[in-house]
Amino acid sequence: MNLSHIEHIGIAVKNLEEALPYYENVLGIKCYNIEEVADQKVKTAFFKVGETKIELLEATSEDSPVAKFIEKKGEGVHHIAFAVNNLEGALQECSDAGIKLIDQTPRKGAEGLSIAFLHPKSTQGVLTELCEDKNK
Amino acid sequence: MNLSHIEHIGIAVKNLEEALPYYENVLGIKCYNIEEVADQKVKTAFFKVGETKIELLEATSEDSPVAKFIEKKGEGVHHIAFAVNNLEGALQECSDAGIKLIDQTPRKGAEGLSIAFLHPKSTQGVLTELCEDKNK
Repeated sequence: MNLSHIEHIGIAVKNLEEALPYYENVLGIKCYNIEEVADQKVKTAFFKVGETKIELLEATSEDSPVAKFIEKKGEGVHHIAFAVNNLEGALQECSDAGIKLIDQTPRKGAEGLSIAFLHPKSTQGVLTELCEDKNK
Repeated sequence: MNLSHIEHIGIAVKNLEEALPYYENVLGIKCYNIEEVADQKVKTAFFKVGETKIELLEATSEDSPVAKFIEKKGEGVHHIAFAVNNLEGALQECSDAGIKLIDQTPRKGAEGLSIAFLHPKSTQGVLTELCEDKNK
């Protein structure tokens, strides 16, 4: 598998509006987009630090994976996403290596990326996303 | 504050040797250094993905912060480190903004960086490190 960079870090927060001042005013990075990802039941605020995005994730429903994460572990880093140049091939490599997949095939994620998640049981507890930007 | 990039992501694992094959053989990123950081009571394995390092952290003692983290939250992302160009100034800005600091002044971290941690109570649960490479 060929990872080019860390595409984003997803951070679960209870309330986006309350988290924004820390990122914008203290860390000094500006939110450039807020987007709702309906199938994940989250509202997401995007920032850029170097080549990597920070995605703050607020649950829009009590049964959102992000709400369940916060209930279990508290606010904090929810997942890491690596950019790959061939997502289907990368998933096949993971599967061949015995890594448990959450998504067997790519699906559409935020910002038009093709994405798939690996199960944290196979990745030492780190919910891991692989992303491919097919518009590039 | 001027963040140039995400310097590294620290990931707490129970056992470095057991975690290495996933990173090296599945994700395909090679460990370029293993280093013990005595004052943090951790053994660290370093990888590079784009401009960001992955640091796997294994506790070397039961009272290591990493051991306590795993006991409380399980294996997973332990902290995020941002690269800054003026660490003293960045800490002053955080302090002025009411952010709780773990380190009031910079100290020496892995790989010779000057580092300081912000308290997760002030950063929506994300243990956050600021780093300056004074050798640059």
